[in-house]
Amino acid sequence: MALKLYDDRMSQPSRAILIFCKANGIEFEEVKTEIAKKQHRSPEFAEVNPMKQVPAIVHGDFKLFESHEILIYLASAFPGIADHWYPADVRKRAKVHSVLDWHHSNLRRGSAGYMFNSAIALALGLPLNPEAAAESEKLLSKSLAMIESYWLQGDGPFLLGNEKPSIADLALVCEIMQIEAADENERERILGPHKRILKWIEDTKNATAPHFDEIHSIMPLARQMLKELKVQASKP
Amino acid sequence: MALKLYDDRMSQPSRAILIFCKANGIEFEEVKTEIAKKQHRSPEFAEVNPMKQVPAIVHGDFKLFESHEILIYLASAFPGIADHWYPADVRKRAKVHSVLDWHHSNLRRGSAGYMFNSAIALALGLPLNPEAAAESEKLLSKSLAMIESYWLQGDGPFLLGNEKPSIADLALVCEIMQIEAADENERERILGPHKRILKWIEDTKNATAPHFDEIHSIMPLARQMLKELKVQASKP
Repeated sequence: MALKLYDDRMSQPSRAILIFCKANGIEFEEVKTEIAKKQHRSPEFAEVNPMKQVPAIVHGDFKLFESHEILIYLASAFPGIADHWYPADVRKRAKVHSVLDWHHSNLRRGSAGYMFNSAIALALGLPLNPEAAAESEKLLSKSLAMIESYWLQGDGPFLLGNEKPSIADLALVCEIMQIEAADENERERILGPHKRILKWIEDTKNATAPHFDEIHSIMPLARQMLKELKVQASKP
Repeated sequence: MALKLYDDRMSQPSRAILIFCKANGIEFEEVKTEIAKKQHRSPEFAEVNPMKQVPAIVHGDFKLFESHEILIYLASAFPGIADHWYPADVRKRAKVHSVLDWHHSNLRRGSAGYMFNSAIALALGLPLNPEAAAESEKLLSKSLAMIESYWLQGDGPFLLGNEKPSIADLALVCEIMQIEAADENERERILGPHKRILKWIEDTKNATAPHFDEIHSIMPLARQMLKELKVQASKP
């Protein structure tokens, strides 16, 4: 049964799903749906996802959106996916869900809010909002500190002290990688103080090599695009 | 193995878990953790949930927080819970996850943002923020419309066209019930246009009777409390 993945590699949840599929040998057809070209707002795409957001999948006659859920579905519906990605044990699984739930209202909200208000708004023809960006950066930094002091505590290098990554590691690390699209000084200000986070990114990259780097090869382009938009916006 | 539920009946996710336990005959000890008395900020509670939020559970030596995840865990770990609450079928389950994921960034964000900025902030000694409340109300109304036009489409009376409720029905309906704590005219303005939502609330109430009404019997008290805070705040 064919799996179609509607994504935009500029979007961090899209990248998490791409890496998961490639790292687990799941075959799929990538249907690029570029947000900057408003392809996610087309009537054709509304048939795939009425919420008009990427990523989304179509698997046979089954349609699904929301990135965490797509990761859970892929880990459950495809045979031979290693247990560490989405453990069968009820309690271990509950902990993975718990991180993903927490992610929504904390790391993701801070990170997406920061990137949007400090840069990405320009790509949609909207003005930047430095106050909202500063507010989001507070939540982002608080979330990074909480990952270090709580979620990454334990014996293993991954979330929940695991020896191998789960879908939560992939979702959260891809979210943090979005900050690569910011200016170097912003990235240093936000991520620099969090050495444990930087090690975790490396561990996740190594655990999913070479796919992690391949899928993130778009980041310099994203950074360049946002830089140019800022230069343009600053012109009188 | 004893189940302890740390909750505050003023909190909508706490109420969803309480109703789920009672409707499914799950025995538990309720440890009331009142937000207004800052009991969720005590060092003792930080041992239960380092995020200092209710609800949280302790089941034997297992600790868990985030309300969606608690619902999933309870439905998975306790024997004899009817399949409709959290279906074993991978695709049906994926759809339930999908609603819960969507809820985070849409209905819950709109509803919690509206109630906080239009009233609850006062309970924490913070000023109201009418602009933020108006912004949240937009997201709330958009989310209610999306529930009617998409999630409640189908043959059955519940989300995803199901004949019987899932944990997603309980989570979302309890979120909407929080608007009961607002003034009557606000409630009418926000919920009045959504007849399908009102019917769904009734269906969920009937499917979980008498527990739904029992657990929501706190709402008049919540409304009265917020009303008094507003009167006090309006005094010069």
